[in-house]
Amino acid sequence: MNIEELCRLIDKKAPDLVQSLSKLVKQPSISAKGVGLVECASLVREMMEEAGIKSEFIDIEGAPPFVFGEVKSKRHDAKTIIFYNHYDVQPPDPVELWSSDPFAAEIREGKMFGRGVSDNKADIISRINLVKAFLELGDLPCNVKFIVEGEEEIGSPHLPVLAERNAERLRADACIWESGGLDEKERPEITLGMKGILYVELRSQVATRDAHSSLGAAVANPAWRLVWALSKIKGEDEKILIPGWYEDVKELTDEELKALEEMPLEEELIKADLGVKEFLPGISGMKLKRALVGSPTATICGFQSGYTGPGSKTVLPSTALAKIDFRLVPDQKPEKLLKALESHLAFHGFGDIEVCVLAKEEAGRTRLDEEIVHCAAEAAKQTYGRDAIIKLSSAGSGPMYLFTKRLKTPSICIGCTHAFERAHAPDENLRLDIFIQGTKWVARTLSLFGKQNQR
Amino acid sequence: MNIEELCRLIDKKAPDLVQSLSKLVKQPSISAKGVGLVECASLVREMMEEAGIKSEFIDIEGAPPFVFGEVKSKRHDAKTIIFYNHYDVQPPDPVELWSSDPFAAEIREGKMFGRGVSDNKADIISRINLVKAFLELGDLPCNVKFIVEGEEEIGSPHLPVLAERNAERLRADACIWESGGLDEKERPEITLGMKGILYVELRSQVATRDAHSSLGAAVANPAWRLVWALSKIKGEDEKILIPGWYEDVKELTDEELKALEEMPLEEELIKADLGVKEFLPGISGMKLKRALVGSPTATICGFQSGYTGPGSKTVLPSTALAKIDFRLVPDQKPEKLLKALESHLAFHGFGDIEVCVLAKEEAGRTRLDEEIVHCAAEAAKQTYGRDAIIKLSSAGSGPMYLFTKRLKTPSICIGCTHAFERAHAPDENLRLDIFIQGTKWVARTLSLFGKQNQR
Repeated sequence: MNIEELCRLIDKKAPDLVQSLSKLVKQPSISAKGVGLVECASLVREMMEEAGIKSEFIDIEGAPPFVFGEVKSKRHDAKTIIFYNHYDVQPPDPVELWSSDPFAAEIREGKMFGRGVSDNKADIISRINLVKAFLELGDLPCNVKFIVEGEEEIGSPHLPVLAERNAERLRADACIWESGGLDEKERPEITLGMKGILYVELRSQVATRDAHSSLGAAVANPAWRLVWALSKIKGEDEKILIPGWYEDVKELTDEELKALEEMPLEEELIKADLGVKEFLPGISGMKLKRALVGSPTATICGFQSGYTGPGSKTVLPSTALAKIDFRLVPDQKPEKLLKALESHLAFHGFGDIEVCVLAKEEAGRTRLDEEIVHCAAEAAKQTYGRDAIIKLSSAGSGPMYLFTKRLKTPSICIGCTHAFERAHAPDENLRLDIFIQGTKWVARTLSLFGKQNQR
Repeated sequence: MNIEELCRLIDKKAPDLVQSLSKLVKQPSISAKGVGLVECASLVREMMEEAGIKSEFIDIEGAPPFVFGEVKSKRHDAKTIIFYNHYDVQPPDPVELWSSDPFAAEIREGKMFGRGVSDNKADIISRINLVKAFLELGDLPCNVKFIVEGEEEIGSPHLPVLAERNAERLRADACIWESGGLDEKERPEITLGMKGILYVELRSQVATRDAHSSLGAAVANPAWRLVWALSKIKGEDEKILIPGWYEDVKELTDEELKALEEMPLEEELIKADLGVKEFLPGISGMKLKRALVGSPTATICGFQSGYTGPGSKTVLPSTALAKIDFRLVPDQKPEKLLKALESHLAFHGFGDIEVCVLAKEEAGRTRLDEEIVHCAAEAAKQTYGRDAIIKLSSAGSGPMYLFTKRLKTPSICIGCTHAFERAHAPDENLRLDIFIQGTKWVARTLSLFGKQNQR
């Protein structure tokens, strides 16, 4: 089969891809709120079946269905690629800041807007349809597996169990992860790793009910307690103050540092997009790159206590909560750090603050010299006519370690997305031209990977 | 006129009082949200007119109407009492914690439940109706004036202007303030002062939109900035860290300390009511009393940033806000302290945090030896058969200083409320028996005050 013919077929089918994506985006699937997950999983399965991919639900107790798909090449020596994706999305809040309904999949100026359109529904549609196109033209260059989960946005709590119980089924020669695409200057980007995460909710409760704030002289205030506790967790210099936090951080190798130096980073574009004047003090150039790729972080994602509506309410709150997202790098261990956090709070007199774990996963990283990396780079050149950027790690996190570390499957992120996609934020969007180009990029990668050094 | 006859008349009219109160509570009047204020003011005015009190609106630009009422005794040498009340209420949030609709005025087990029922609508109905009863029996023991405002719960921003422009109209020999009543053990309580307040909103904005929290390594986080800034405002020992904050605090006199020692304080009852195990470390007995009466406080009334719904959302918030209520004691000056707060934030590198003033007023306090204090104490004994407790100051605040300091009118709090009224909290309520007894208490106070040392 001629790969150019396949790419022409994908171009021809572009309207179908857009329509399928619209259908998938219109099905809300918010894992944080347990909304629409089974419905969305069923839709993904239907789409796979319709494309000629044998699919099934794998059930893990307490989790929405994992969608497993499989389709074989006719060649007996074919290698195997597995696609990792997720059908769940972030909550659309704050809804009032969206320009259109987050589940309407509205198209404006060549972009589709919607929660999850870019993270990660476009990749699902793209990959199902490139397989379909290969099959329509006769055969696949390699065997293909799909694993699509419904809990990525809440930290993939059941993926470890799934991976453990289904190691053989998930076995592959390489994994193409979710979330790759073009950077701020339209350069194809291949990402080799993801940060880990420890996401906790800290809760302070002092009284069983709110009181008049005049009692502030006598009764403890949970908001103050959280403020003081948090000020012990990270200092104004952005250093995490919990003893041992940086202990297991693996230094970058010389090769990795070199790749990092070569990696462009469009600081001004990122700043303009976010509407910030400056990055953190002293963070630019190589330091910024190291921060994004190699630094553990502690981010307050949410803080709530008392009355926060318009005007003044003189209330002494009875409860306060903060959501904290700690991003981890290789080889930090979430369990160990969780204990360190709890001990640290207790040591400083905040043992009464409840620590609830909402997500935890290790960081994962693929080596620079893996074959799938070379194939993706070559395919990028064929698709976009320019060299791909190699990114050691996403600044974001995901359960890639289950593939890179546990299943020993080299994994990379390539796909349909774009640096200005606004993932997790209002007006998340997908550029439809990149949607189609990205589909061709992944198809070419499969084609090259299938050809080289067959088993 | 015989005061006992008047009290019997009040008993007889109890059902009318309850019905009028229900009507007033059912009219929402939330100053923080600008809801229902003119409607509520009109209702108060109607009720005054219906009772034979000449009333009018006094308009101050930007304020909801002040209701001024006046009715004269037939005696030419009569002294004058002014009642200060407010028809506005706190927001009912969190509404979901109420056992019944906060504006339904539901009666259960001898209590009426509703936002504002106790703070301060019961006093309004009580006072209008005791005047009505006096008039029905022939005459008032003294001239009576009413000033009822609609912005007490947001710090009475326009009352200073009103007082300045209408000093003559507000002139009186004594003022009966809002919010007095029975303590935890049903003892009548006469309160001689109120704390002042400086209520500010601190706002931090870093970016123009929320971002993916993976950028936490590079972009400033407004929630962290507020946490660090707040940790500079008050230490874990509850001491306010802003230089000069305690400079103007007036020490209690020996007489005041003696009154404080005599004042009972039901620590266990207060704790049980709030559902707290302990007060702040070391705060009990005389220290607790001094804290409630004489300590400046800094209370976080609200804190909001980012995502605070169920589950985890990995977002880097673009804004954060905190509402802080500083309670002041004589002779702290809000303007001076506001400047000190701003300088303090700037000094510690938080000059970017916006400080918005939502309320500010000085503390006010009446001397122990004023005639109105003695009359109220004697009337309490007649009404409840026991000695009144003299409280130097409420732990709460109010613009009493305008009367005690500016108009030189001794002012006390006596009335219909109860220690377990849950003012400002869900399930605010009023005990209907105390409503009627409190009405008689105030009537007797007027009677005694009118008799003594006539002008």
